[in-house]
Amino acid sequence: MDIMKYTAGQDADKNWIVEESQFDHRFLGKCEAIFALGNGYMGQRAALEERYIGETRNLFIAGTFNKFAENEVTELPNAADVLWLDFWLNDCYFSLKEGRVLKYRRYLHVKNAELIREVEWESPKGEVFALKFRRFVSLVNKHLIAMQAEITPLSGSVEVFIKSGINGRMTNSGAAHFAEGGARFYDGKFMQITQKTTQSDINFAFNSMHSFMIDGKPYDAAGHIALDRRQIFFEYSGIKLEKGQSFVVEKLSNVFTDRDKDCCATDLDGLKEASLEHLKVLAQKSYEEHFVAHKAAWLEKVWDIAPIEVQSKNDFDQLAIRFAQYHLTVMTPTHDNRMGVGAKGISGEGYKGHSFWDTEIFILPYFIYTMPDVARSLLEYRYNTLSGARKKAKENGYDGAMFPWESAWMDDGEVTPLWGAADIITGEPIKIWTGIIEQHITSDISYSVWQYFKITGDVDFMEKCGYEIILDTAKFWASRLEWNEAKQEYHINNVIGPDEYKEHINNDAFTNYMAHWNIKKAMEYYVELKDGSADIYDRLNEKLDLDGTYAIWQDKIGKIYLPQPRPQDNVIPQDDTYLTKPEIDLEKYKKQANVGSIYRDYNQEQINSMQVSKQANIVILFYLLPDLANEVVKRANWDYYEPKTLHDSSLSLSTHSIIACEMGDMPMAYELFTRAANIDLGPNMKTSDMGIHAASLGGIWQCVVNGFGGVRMVAGELYISPRLPDVWEVLGFPIFWKGDRLEVNVEKNKIEINRKTESSEPMDIWVNGAKYDLRGCVVVQL
Amino acid sequence: MDIMKYTAGQDADKNWIVEESQFDHRFLGKCEAIFALGNGYMGQRAALEERYIGETRNLFIAGTFNKFAENEVTELPNAADVLWLDFWLNDCYFSLKEGRVLKYRRYLHVKNAELIREVEWESPKGEVFALKFRRFVSLVNKHLIAMQAEITPLSGSVEVFIKSGINGRMTNSGAAHFAEGGARFYDGKFMQITQKTTQSDINFAFNSMHSFMIDGKPYDAAGHIALDRRQIFFEYSGIKLEKGQSFVVEKLSNVFTDRDKDCCATDLDGLKEASLEHLKVLAQKSYEEHFVAHKAAWLEKVWDIAPIEVQSKNDFDQLAIRFAQYHLTVMTPTHDNRMGVGAKGISGEGYKGHSFWDTEIFILPYFIYTMPDVARSLLEYRYNTLSGARKKAKENGYDGAMFPWESAWMDDGEVTPLWGAADIITGEPIKIWTGIIEQHITSDISYSVWQYFKITGDVDFMEKCGYEIILDTAKFWASRLEWNEAKQEYHINNVIGPDEYKEHINNDAFTNYMAHWNIKKAMEYYVELKDGSADIYDRLNEKLDLDGTYAIWQDKIGKIYLPQPRPQDNVIPQDDTYLTKPEIDLEKYKKQANVGSIYRDYNQEQINSMQVSKQANIVILFYLLPDLANEVVKRANWDYYEPKTLHDSSLSLSTHSIIACEMGDMPMAYELFTRAANIDLGPNMKTSDMGIHAASLGGIWQCVVNGFGGVRMVAGELYISPRLPDVWEVLGFPIFWKGDRLEVNVEKNKIEINRKTESSEPMDIWVNGAKYDLRGCVVVQL
Repeated sequence: MDIMKYTAGQDADKNWIVEESQFDHRFLGKCEAIFALGNGYMGQRAALEERYIGETRNLFIAGTFNKFAENEVTELPNAADVLWLDFWLNDCYFSLKEGRVLKYRRYLHVKNAELIREVEWESPKGEVFALKFRRFVSLVNKHLIAMQAEITPLSGSVEVFIKSGINGRMTNSGAAHFAEGGARFYDGKFMQITQKTTQSDINFAFNSMHSFMIDGKPYDAAGHIALDRRQIFFEYSGIKLEKGQSFVVEKLSNVFTDRDKDCCATDLDGLKEASLEHLKVLAQKSYEEHFVAHKAAWLEKVWDIAPIEVQSKNDFDQLAIRFAQYHLTVMTPTHDNRMGVGAKGISGEGYKGHSFWDTEIFILPYFIYTMPDVARSLLEYRYNTLSGARKKAKENGYDGAMFPWESAWMDDGEVTPLWGAADIITGEPIKIWTGIIEQHITSDISYSVWQYFKITGDVDFMEKCGYEIILDTAKFWASRLEWNEAKQEYHINNVIGPDEYKEHINNDAFTNYMAHWNIKKAMEYYVELKDGSADIYDRLNEKLDLDGTYAIWQDKIGKIYLPQPRPQDNVIPQDDTYLTKPEIDLEKYKKQANVGSIYRDYNQEQINSMQVSKQANIVILFYLLPDLANEVVKRANWDYYEPKTLHDSSLSLSTHSIIACEMGDMPMAYELFTRAANIDLGPNMKTSDMGIHAASLGGIWQCVVNGFGGVRMVAGELYISPRLPDVWEVLGFPIFWKGDRLEVNVEKNKIEINRKTESSEPMDIWVNGAKYDLRGCVVVQL
Repeated sequence: MDIMKYTAGQDADKNWIVEESQFDHRFLGKCEAIFALGNGYMGQRAALEERYIGETRNLFIAGTFNKFAENEVTELPNAADVLWLDFWLNDCYFSLKEGRVLKYRRYLHVKNAELIREVEWESPKGEVFALKFRRFVSLVNKHLIAMQAEITPLSGSVEVFIKSGINGRMTNSGAAHFAEGGARFYDGKFMQITQKTTQSDINFAFNSMHSFMIDGKPYDAAGHIALDRRQIFFEYSGIKLEKGQSFVVEKLSNVFTDRDKDCCATDLDGLKEASLEHLKVLAQKSYEEHFVAHKAAWLEKVWDIAPIEVQSKNDFDQLAIRFAQYHLTVMTPTHDNRMGVGAKGISGEGYKGHSFWDTEIFILPYFIYTMPDVARSLLEYRYNTLSGARKKAKENGYDGAMFPWESAWMDDGEVTPLWGAADIITGEPIKIWTGIIEQHITSDISYSVWQYFKITGDVDFMEKCGYEIILDTAKFWASRLEWNEAKQEYHINNVIGPDEYKEHINNDAFTNYMAHWNIKKAMEYYVELKDGSADIYDRLNEKLDLDGTYAIWQDKIGKIYLPQPRPQDNVIPQDDTYLTKPEIDLEKYKKQANVGSIYRDYNQEQINSMQVSKQANIVILFYLLPDLANEVVKRANWDYYEPKTLHDSSLSLSTHSIIACEMGDMPMAYELFTRAANIDLGPNMKTSDMGIHAASLGGIWQCVVNGFGGVRMVAGELYISPRLPDVWEVLGFPIFWKGDRLEVNVEKNKIEINRKTESSEPMDIWVNGAKYDLRGCVVVQL
């Protein structure tokens, strides 16, 4: 059953609405995630106001990691719930599981970043009410969560009872990250809870207040205050409405932590006072007034900067890319370079808020091409984690910087948990090896630094952060190489590549090539810096012993084993043994409704010993290093690996779609794009329970701009070779290139590129294989 | 609405059944508590198999206290949930909130200690099913929780899907006491979770297994194993039943901790292995086989030892006393003298599993008179906490042993939390003073030691524990006394008495008299021991400096201020200022539906300054020290204080009922008894949410035996002066006196007392004021 609608909304709202057209308990988790609100500072999962079994009420504040117990890893703690707003209407608890739901519609207005629910509800007593709920998490004031509920009795009079407060009992699936803190009321109107994380000692302050209206006029509801353990709330009783009267309650809440850069409080009392004062100021305006400003901010900061136009026979395509941009905005902590993007954004407990290579390879391109300052902040986060990366290298017996597979607070180092799901054969939990041996993250980050630099031309960043990252990661790789005496080569053994079905493999092509690339790039920059930037060279040489390291690089770079295409079929071995393993019939899993279905039939060890891939390492390699192979080799590898790939990673679809584009297989490219868009927006009711798929959402943008839009940076130059899917008429998007804004408009028969930033500087770009100097506008007829 | 039934059941079951005749969400918490199962080792709150919003799924293992964070107090942690058993019937989740409930009945069979639920349910698809759930917590094997569910499709065939496991995500209202532990499956059949408390480092192991039958024949369901965070479970699918077929699933679970005295494992691996082996042995028997043994154990250990017969016009009276005994058995850790009884037993999170004076003054008499070995174990617990009591005395600047107001693990000392509910005037949380200044607990425990000794004659206990408690607490009191220069008296200022409405009062009559009693008793025993038991005297003198302390006692005992009856009206001032405070109209609160209703109108400071009592200190004093005052004085004080008493403590009703009995006010005595019985069993839907009222349940037994049965120990002698309520025809009960079993049978016109233990020793008892030598049987006509 498909209860999600995507094309609702007309005129101005067209393709801006993601709608749940019917309340279905089974979609609870999915809707909580895909309807999540946020502003990079915080993510508010879209639990309903009233409570349901199976719900997950999550509020995350970016970067506030805490470790619950010694044997657990740090995670983003689930903060207090301020959405709590329970109604009793003539003594009947308002719940969609009680009485009858006569009308229902919940929708995320993607453009306005507002979540709205409209219900017509018949209570168990047979009385009918119209209810409308609205909420947003402000992009203007990042500490503000605003809610509004409107109740109108349709069949007779009603007495309303409300229980609303702040619930500090939240846990992350049973791990409670806060010690019991203080709670109190102020001025008979404001509620406040403070809580401190148990290990990282971050103080949180939550404040809430209510205001009421009947038929548009302010109403003074009689509130009884109550404290319970880790809870503070008001009970409002005796609110009487005649049939047809409209009752509105507005709840404004804020959240502060003493880790916030804009928190000027020096102690807990200061935090209490400052956060309360903050809410008192907010309380002077209504929900609507705050909303108008919020809506304008989304236009200014997102939609006007990075508008994408897709004219498709499937309206869904336009919505999907907007939805992706919506969540990319919600999840990204643009305000603070001490924080990264979590693999589930801040929309669920999945992956504990940790950053993976997902950020650099899948999410960052969006920001590099449209909001370079945000991209820089995210790369500065990686720079800020260098101490942890160096710690990890040292702990593992290596030199330089070895970035953690999962990254949290800056100096945490590796935070990948050690144990996962149960092995179906032995009954034991499966050991998670990624934190130890999935090492390509280190070159992925270096690659991304280089990509950022080449696209933005931001020398300042390179001097302050970028060179150091590339050089120190190359230092790591040099120490990581293992000499194979028999073959007289350097190998990299016992790793996991992007294809995580294969553990403990030797010479994963992706890892080897990227390590080689990393060292090579470092060697280039070493020479460049030594020749041209003495200051920087001296500083880094002192810090990293570049001279000594360069000698090692020189010695090793030519001896790194880089797997080559097999003569007989041009297939590059994914690793030393992949091609020797048996193949099985994968049809059942290729068509899987849920990810990981193969794990219900085989255990890790068995999957390890078959030719089946989660995603194809060689394909991703072709995407990152487009000049690595010629078209024949690419095609041969695509044809070999794709059929063995289950796309059992949300990362897989977008890269594979882009490579399909590159090879001109537009039906396949479009199908993979559609599947990527369906990961979160599709009818699968369980797929997003633990949170949206951040990398996939970044991947959707890449499908559109790097895939169909054909935008690629190759060796520092800009290439644009668009190929529209059959069902698309028009694709328009902006990108920034070296600080200049370009607007690209692709139609079936022409490509038009406008350089919007005024400049007399020449700009070389390649359009469909021909070079142009883009001064004002280039139009290429197709 | 009253959905509870008490007299259901006929013939053998008559007055053994507490029934919930209709599912009402609002009674969720109450039923969870009053239907709680347990065996002293563990308490399993009666959450339903399937889940509901607002439920509290609690499993407590006695004595396993843990402190979540530095600023919190230790509490009994909510252990993993093994009740979890979810059904889908033709894809419809079985929940009483879905579809329609056609028939419903849930009842606790008090005699068998089994909880049974019978439901006829129409699913949202309109299909009808009969479901029957049974469960018990074994009194034979204290680690065993046994469950059975039977499903019969009544309207057509069905495919059953089951999800059942162990959920380790439980918290105490948001405080998670366990670090994430291990989880695994064994033999494709057994599930195991281990978890360790975060601070007290207690390892827990939980094991569960299922077995199935269709129409009575073993059935092998296909199970898929799954691990999630802090959860382990099986999913059984493809179970197909024809209309009328009966499908039974049995789930046997066990719990062990490495603090268990019968746990022989020396490390976590040993605990895992031993607990798994334990369940494997249990798994060889069916639910029914385990149940038969369990039922027999209840008969042998409870009902045959302490049967009480009440022939009343109100059947409820007989059930109420049995219900009390049921819970007294469930809550009491008879297996381990390192543990006390919690104020809510082990049926809820209320009072965090801590022991109060409730144990000694309200619960212990039941065990002293019927199961002296259990009473001894509970007093040994207090003895084992002496180090904590000494620590508390020292921290407060006193000598000797100052028992904590709230007591948990043996050496914890004081564990009363510091902050409570919100002050309705200031909005701030109210400071909880009881842990600091409610000091009468110390003499209450001494008193109870003496009472135990006088009733049982257990010299061994006195020599090993009892004398030391009485002497060291007396030492505390001597140091606690404050010299009032003006009055040339010793005062005890700034305390809270049993009437907790009054804080920071001076010379609370209860506290002063009991402190005086404590010192006096110590002085008697000092002399006795010095004269007659040199060994013990020497040991204790060395430990406690008895000689030096005795000199202090001698000096102070005569100068302690003991408030006397006022000449004008014989009223003894409850404290220095009570009688000077204004009175208010209390009618509204006397009739309150919920406890604490006065706090909705007044704050603590205001209540402190009025003549209103939670319970009347003087009345309780008369109960404990019956020879303190003559009947005239008692009556005068009763008449003065009772009307000012809101009985806003579950402790109040029983003592006041007994005193009413003593004064011959039988309607009042019976009314108070009935109200006491209604605290947990009555129609008030919220009253037991946080757990049953342990002290009140002990008080019900006291109402019956010490009140209506008229059994009192005065100055070491046994008095029996029964007075039956008007509606009672017969009251029969056993008591132990100095190790001999007496059976007392009271009818309207005679009292018969049989000494069941064969003995040629004389036994003096007072029956209705006359002294008898009870060799075999005494019959007194009325």
